[in-house]
Amino acid sequence: MTMTFEVEEKLIPNTHSFGTMRAAVFHGVDDIRIEEVPRPHAGPGEAVIRVTLTTICGTDLHILRGEYPVKPGLVIGHEPVGVIDELGAGVTGYKTGDRVIVGAITPCGQCNACLSGKLSQCGHGSGYEAIGGWRFGNTINGAQCEYLLVPNAQANLAKIPDDVTDEQVVLLTDIASTGIGGAESGGVKIGDVVVVFAQGPIGLCAALGAKLMGASIVIGVDGDDKRIAFARKMGIDVVLDYRKTDVIEEVRRLTDGIGADVAIESLGTQQTFENALRVLRPGGTLSSLGVYSGKLQVPYDAFAAGLGDHRIVTTLCPGGKERMRRLIEMVRRGKLDLTPLITHRFKLADINAAYKLFGSRADGVMKVTIAP
Amino acid sequence: MTMTFEVEEKLIPNTHSFGTMRAAVFHGVDDIRIEEVPRPHAGPGEAVIRVTLTTICGTDLHILRGEYPVKPGLVIGHEPVGVIDELGAGVTGYKTGDRVIVGAITPCGQCNACLSGKLSQCGHGSGYEAIGGWRFGNTINGAQCEYLLVPNAQANLAKIPDDVTDEQVVLLTDIASTGIGGAESGGVKIGDVVVVFAQGPIGLCAALGAKLMGASIVIGVDGDDKRIAFARKMGIDVVLDYRKTDVIEEVRRLTDGIGADVAIESLGTQQTFENALRVLRPGGTLSSLGVYSGKLQVPYDAFAAGLGDHRIVTTLCPGGKERMRRLIEMVRRGKLDLTPLITHRFKLADINAAYKLFGSRADGVMKVTIAP
Amino acid sequence: MTMTFEVEEKLIPNTHSFGTMRAAVFHGVDDIRIEEVPRPHAGPGEAVIRVTLTTICGTDLHILRGEYPVKPGLVIGHEPVGVIDELGAGVTGYKTGDRVIVGAITPCGQCNACLSGKLSQCGHGSGYEAIGGWRFGNTINGAQCEYLLVPNAQANLAKIPDDVTDEQVVLLTDIASTGIGGAESGGVKIGDVVVVFAQGPIGLCAALGAKLMGASIVIGVDGDDKRIAFARKMGIDVVLDYRKTDVIEEVRRLTDGIGADVAIESLGTQQTFENALRVLRPGGTLSSLGVYSGKLQVPYDAFAAGLGDHRIVTTLCPGGKERMRRLIEMVRRGKLDLTPLITHRFKLADINAAYKLFGSRADGVMKVTIAP
Amino acid sequence: MTMTFEVEEKLIPNTHSFGTMRAAVFHGVDDIRIEEVPRPHAGPGEAVIRVTLTTICGTDLHILRGEYPVKPGLVIGHEPVGVIDELGAGVTGYKTGDRVIVGAITPCGQCNACLSGKLSQCGHGSGYEAIGGWRFGNTINGAQCEYLLVPNAQANLAKIPDDVTDEQVVLLTDIASTGIGGAESGGVKIGDVVVVFAQGPIGLCAALGAKLMGASIVIGVDGDDKRIAFARKMGIDVVLDYRKTDVIEEVRRLTDGIGADVAIESLGTQQTFENALRVLRPGGTLSSLGVYSGKLQVPYDAFAAGLGDHRIVTTLCPGGKERMRRLIEMVRRGKLDLTPLITHRFKLADINAAYKLFGSRADGVMKVTIAP
Repeated sequence: MTMTFEVEEKLIPNTHSFGTMRAAVFHGVDDIRIEEVPRPHAGPGEAVIRVTLTTICGTDLHILRGEYPVKPGLVIGHEPVGVIDELGAGVTGYKTGDRVIVGAITPCGQCNACLSGKLSQCGHGSGYEAIGGWRFGNTINGAQCEYLLVPNAQANLAKIPDDVTDEQVVLLTDIASTGIGGAESGGVKIGDVVVVFAQGPIGLCAALGAKLMGASIVIGVDGDDKRIAFARKMGIDVVLDYRKTDVIEEVRRLTDGIGADVAIESLGTQQTFENALRVLRPGGTLSSLGVYSGKLQVPYDAFAAGLGDHRIVTTLCPGGKERMRRLIEMVRRGKLDLTPLITHRFKLADINAAYKLFGSRADGVMKVTIAP
Repeated sequence: MTMTFEVEEKLIPNTHSFGTMRAAVFHGVDDIRIEEVPRPHAGPGEAVIRVTLTTICGTDLHILRGEYPVKPGLVIGHEPVGVIDELGAGVTGYKTGDRVIVGAITPCGQCNACLSGKLSQCGHGSGYEAIGGWRFGNTINGAQCEYLLVPNAQANLAKIPDDVTDEQVVLLTDIASTGIGGAESGGVKIGDVVVVFAQGPIGLCAALGAKLMGASIVIGVDGDDKRIAFARKMGIDVVLDYRKTDVIEEVRRLTDGIGADVAIESLGTQQTFENALRVLRPGGTLSSLGVYSGKLQVPYDAFAAGLGDHRIVTTLCPGGKERMRRLIEMVRRGKLDLTPLITHRFKLADINAAYKLFGSRADGVMKVTIAP
Repeated sequence: MTMTFEVEEKLIPNTHSFGTMRAAVFHGVDDIRIEEVPRPHAGPGEAVIRVTLTTICGTDLHILRGEYPVKPGLVIGHEPVGVIDELGAGVTGYKTGDRVIVGAITPCGQCNACLSGKLSQCGHGSGYEAIGGWRFGNTINGAQCEYLLVPNAQANLAKIPDDVTDEQVVLLTDIASTGIGGAESGGVKIGDVVVVFAQGPIGLCAALGAKLMGASIVIGVDGDDKRIAFARKMGIDVVLDYRKTDVIEEVRRLTDGIGADVAIESLGTQQTFENALRVLRPGGTLSSLGVYSGKLQVPYDAFAAGLGDHRIVTTLCPGGKERMRRLIEMVRRGKLDLTPLITHRFKLADINAAYKLFGSRADGVMKVTIAP
Repeated sequence: MTMTFEVEEKLIPNTHSFGTMRAAVFHGVDDIRIEEVPRPHAGPGEAVIRVTLTTICGTDLHILRGEYPVKPGLVIGHEPVGVIDELGAGVTGYKTGDRVIVGAITPCGQCNACLSGKLSQCGHGSGYEAIGGWRFGNTINGAQCEYLLVPNAQANLAKIPDDVTDEQVVLLTDIASTGIGGAESGGVKIGDVVVVFAQGPIGLCAALGAKLMGASIVIGVDGDDKRIAFARKMGIDVVLDYRKTDVIEEVRRLTDGIGADVAIESLGTQQTFENALRVLRPGGTLSSLGVYSGKLQVPYDAFAAGLGDHRIVTTLCPGGKERMRRLIEMVRRGKLDLTPLITHRFKLADINAAYKLFGSRADGVMKVTIAP
């Protein structure tokens, strides 16, 4: 999840309880506590999973810093791996004990948005809603806990094959789906040149997605030595350090003056957005994943009036069990390995240390995992 | 043509002459003169057409006002209807006397841009060029004259059937192609709700394009009484007066709270751009045709971070003889009638009066024609 | 519904009963009887609607003739208009008394097929199933009765606005969705030439769909005087009588030798399939809606080896409430009027007379309605 | 080129001569001779390249065997790598001495077919023609010679970077473009399961194309031990021997019963076509590259009536310099290496031996090269 704008809160109380469990509860700015809270119970169409692994997202940091508002008392986190513990009435094709992941977005599949293929914009039942399908750790309790209530379980439980580990799939639930989704929305084709601005976890996943789709060169851009080195280690074709290189010039040079077919923005600053637009060839696509604070300024020489027939597309993390199934298959068949991004491992009890490290970007941290 | 940004001028001299002709020559701000100039001669791959009808575009007004720079001495205008007068070596399938239109954009068909389907971004031969395929009245002599040299003639001469008049097709060369192109780029589908901001000639063509593609409601927006009345007369389903109606509220009401599937911006102001974004449903598309002066501000609450999975697409007037052929067929089969937009008719000798009227928006003028 | 091949029957017993109702029960070849049967009751996620109007499909004729096997005892019919009578647990956004239509296909929205956008191929829960989402009057009780149990109600109840009548929407549930879906699958674009083979109800809807998408000429083909006259009355641009006209020659003539961009086959014979392939321009699309008995022979000169870069697409009636909502909007906004197809009206008690007339094609019958 | 149906011959005489050269001239069944023939001269819009490397296609074998008719006296072959020797008037952006490849298909870029993006269906000037853009060694002299006349040179000369060898690019001109084109037409997406029937050169390129586009598993099928071993060596994920394995069963097993998303047929037999249809999941796509002799029978249970919403697409080798440029970039950036397919190398003087070996499939031959 990469959003940090204000939304109306709609905390759905998990009134049905079933004993207690430990959970990371948000109490306010810089205040997350491990507490005993009611353990959820699965109503009709729901499931409860025993969480075996989860992680922390940049969005969780925004919540912790008070930059994205959620209601105090909420369990946060939206990237669950677990084992089915309880199945509500009407959920078929699963049994308790099945290992599953659930996407950060939990579409219902039955509203107008979902039925028109806009799963990320799920309206939970009837129509469309502005917040889309992101509910875990946003409007309902999330994954940084022992037991997670999964709404619309029929549409959201993706089984993990026996030969695949939890660590192999934990990053599929959000960052891989978002990053790869950014490459897909960008329409990368065989032979394309793709430039990805910022090489944090999502930018790196976007770059890997562009590689998977057949780009001839994927060019990562960052200004952090460790991330540059890491992106190179992960096989990104060219990694540019914007502190040392004029990125636009260099992309022009690498493309014989044509420019990039697709630019992916995964940082959320005015400058990276502008550079992403300027680096495009005529007719190119800017796929925007980042979060921009305040109004974004679009340079009209690069954009206005169809000069370049540009497209700008934005992508909210795609979810749903079919999406998760496809990503799991990529992992299972050896086409996608994100385990190198997991640089540090924590226990739920130590989640504050995990947040602190992840927020500091110290020690080369890319992603941390949280196990019960 | 609807661009008004600065570009590098590349006046291609038409050195081969063949007697003289009368032409509207641009000499500087507010200075267009009818003069005798060399009559062009067709080199290999070129054609000369005797212009039988043309029109004035908003872009020509920008040129006249000095807002879009072209080199003094240039014949302006880019919307030609005519009769083939001379065919250069290598142009096959035509004969002198054939009635034809030529699009405002004259793609070569043989550069990398054209061969990848980006005809509007034609690079004239080898690759891509920033200015795209717009050459008439921009970098080479244009159509407001008696004889017009057509580059890449093989790719750009679209025959007019005998049962179709010049007036029926003159607006296809630019505004209909651009406006309908905006609806096509927006991906209008059967049942969509489409809102078109501004109901000038291009906005009206965009609205008609959305109707042709199967929109359930096309909503035009303007603030000019005559244009509002004209749009209604042309069959636009709902026409809103933004002076009297909160457009965003009204679109929400008409769509049961969902918002529009596609918004088309054809004016080029900050406010219409913002409203076009805000009127969209989650997952909707903003198709931008207007020209924005200065940096455009994108409201980040409506756009950032994939909140709504929005797309923004821009469209430069699509050209080429196949495009023109398709639009002529729409006219010929009674599916598109733009003749009501032709409100005033002038002779080439009186072109200054035509520019004055067109620029003033007086007398309910929508489009003027210029005949020799 | 236009399928007549053998499938494995999976009659889902509606065990929960709630009094009785009258229904058209299939007992075997040429044996449908109006009987008192248990009235259904809505379980979780289901709804019961009181049927106010329905119709008979060509597929129902196939069932009656024994050409498509369903289990004796089944209530048949799959085109319901009605009023919500009972809502099962978990169905939100509706209330009893709401007027609704339900598509012939009732996707769950939550299986892998639905979540990947293939609603017609719904697997009812987990994956994909060969039969797709068609259940009414096929594997569960159908619409030719007083009360209909709707599975996956959340995904399938489309509200009818007050200003729209039952007759205006009854044909949306299957034939309009299928026919228009055939035009959509064919990818009709502005200016296309579209040929539709057979002008029965589905072919006529396909032709209307092609018109809605901006075809420059829609050419209907049939050999029945009444259907030819009816298609002309419905505004199809050109209607050819294959008994009198060489269709391929005439299409070539109308298209200046190019051929059609899209051909839609809606009859299901070897000859119409072949003609549909042969009438295409290189790169054209054959959208196949018909049912072919026995093996279909594809002429290899027209198809093999990419000679013409042809595409052949098949379309099962698309369903789901969002699809129905969009079609209702087209009706509501005056863009689609299928009421002229309703040539005869029957009461449920007289359904055998309705089947007899509809099967005979006598008296200019196009579609019949069945009211309780 | 993989076509073997009858077409009307249109040998365009290369009347302009310029000394002589050696060429492989077709004289009749099993009769190709190396002879001195007039050396071509470049007219306006044309180029002559000195051929430095070429190869033999399966289509050339068909010609030699009399299964595909060309006019005796024709120089055959359509896969040229060379150096620009002469540039006709009007060809810009190149100089003599530039190393280039030219695709098997040589679109003009300026006819209606090309301008609508159907380059393979080029009509050479005005419209569409049945034969499409394949001219080399079909209707005009081909590449198995010393000097090749290239029509529409501006659209068809793709420069070879200095760091890329002739052997690296010779297979891009036809088999890689066709095979990868089959994967592209099939719409392969990240996570797809793709089955490719036959693992000859084109099937292997299709399988590599599917890998490049992000398939989770690419399954090759063949019945020849050497080709099976070779496909495994080239990195195809799973290679099935149809003599030992029930392919449909095994694909179902590998996909948990779902079936393949895309099947690519590259052999051209009734059985592989049927299997390709049967192996698909509902909604899947059959991309057909093979040549079928006689009428093809489509099993109606797998196809008819939209049961599975299947698509069948056919693909003629895509050409044009932009296509070639993209494939060259894939080679240059290390994403595509077809040199292992070159198993044998011949001189032009020994072309009969090359044909004999290639036709026999002896000695593990995949592709042979012909150097002057």
